[in-house]
Amino acid sequence: MSHQPIIILSKPQLGENIGMVARAMLNCGLTQLRLIAPRDGWPNPHANSASSGALEKGVEVKVYDTTKEALADLSYVLATTARPRDMIKDVFTPEAAITQVATRLNEGNTQKIGLLFGGERAGLDNDDVAICNAIITAPLNPDFTSLNLAQAVLLIGYEWTRQVGFTDTSPHEFVTGQTDIADRKDITLLVDRLEEALEKSSFFRTQETKPSMIRNLTNLFARMNATKQEISTFHGIISALTKQKSED
Amino acid sequence: MSHQPIIILSKPQLGENIGMVARAMLNCGLTQLRLIAPRDGWPNPHANSASSGALEKGVEVKVYDTTKEALADLSYVLATTARPRDMIKDVFTPEAAITQVATRLNEGNTQKIGLLFGGERAGLDNDDVAICNAIITAPLNPDFTSLNLAQAVLLIGYEWTRQVGFTDTSPHEFVTGQTDIADRKDITLLVDRLEEALEKSSFFRTQETKPSMIRNLTNLFARMNATKQEISTFHGIISALTKQKSED
Repeated sequence: MSHQPIIILSKPQLGENIGMVARAMLNCGLTQLRLIAPRDGWPNPHANSASSGALEKGVEVKVYDTTKEALADLSYVLATTARPRDMIKDVFTPEAAITQVATRLNEGNTQKIGLLFGGERAGLDNDDVAICNAIITAPLNPDFTSLNLAQAVLLIGYEWTRQVGFTDTSPHEFVTGQTDIADRKDITLLVDRLEEALEKSSFFRTQETKPSMIRNLTNLFARMNATKQEISTFHGIISALTKQKSED
Repeated sequence: MSHQPIIILSKPQLGENIGMVARAMLNCGLTQLRLIAPRDGWPNPHANSASSGALEKGVEVKVYDTTKEALADLSYVLATTARPRDMIKDVFTPEAAITQVATRLNEGNTQKIGLLFGGERAGLDNDDVAICNAIITAPLNPDFTSLNLAQAVLLIGYEWTRQVGFTDTSPHEFVTGQTDIADRKDITLLVDRLEEALEKSSFFRTQETKPSMIRNLTNLFARMNATKQEISTFHGIISALTKQKSED
């Protein structure tokens, strides 16, 4: 877990928000948190309760008095803030920033990388931003960019997770539980059975339209990606319905 | 704004969380919110204050009594929940899900797409999930998946923004403010000036190492991507330092 970015909060105010940041971090597998001059001191019981256990279960907190001290041992730091007006800086999207962070961490050396976030009220001041290598600005709604602290951290953490975090995740999976997907044979047997039942029920008005109706039914069952269990349920339904019919 | 997914909250409890959902939505340019049986009724003043203005500035809320009614006019609905154990469903990552949603919305017809989220305590029940077309599961830390409602919405909304939302965003930009990037000539003139000053200060112990030192300095200034203003500042520094020297 050492090869991951360190989250740094500059002058956070509410313990509750620090806790929610820790929770968002651990959601994304990030475990190193630094606090610069937290207003209400540290440790903070409000932070613990808001973290939903993240502060006990893995997020490690270090406290510093100044930005300078908090960043001293880091080789590369990105400031998360709005696009600057007057400062000359590289500005990355979260996506591009995390790609770069991951590349640097992958280079196999021991460099430490930090992601700096401003406190609730004032955000990052110009001195905080100036000492950073570059800036991350999320491509949010330009007419409504107000994002709370934990959400800003989650957004960046999610990019980390998406690109690097839990690499076993497939973008698409078909979950079938305990049962297997039906074979094509299961489908055709079901359609045959249904055809027979429909024939007995005088469902087919003319023999001419029958082939296309059967083809449509086959297509319907074929597309639904049913399991063997579900096909079996359909057989049960046909049995039940035809039994009722014969009792009419 | 009609070609965007509709966010649907099933049985949300705290007005504050509904407000934070609205805020996260508007951050990501999403403006259509449906509530199914909100515990504390609607409207809710706690929601308004927690939304940081999002409920006044653009997020439109509709309230329904049941999931069935809330989903009635939607053609495709994704349930945001943990990977199911016993249900047979397609499971997508947020990334893959939003790609699919965007493709469907791009097809130019009038189909409506919904993204369904469970309430704070219970999440989505099995009936809610069963009626949905497929599932979205975020690839979070498997040991710590607890995500609050607004954060779950932000995470999906961010994917929307990232893939579709504000398409003008470049992944990387170099912000220079009012000044232009220095030309190569500005760099070489600066290095020439510096070389001259260093020469006068007997900086170069031997003439043999001088070319490689100058080359290294040139490289350093060339890499830093300085602006004309910054180059001018360096000239000022050289002037100041050499002036002081001559006064020694």
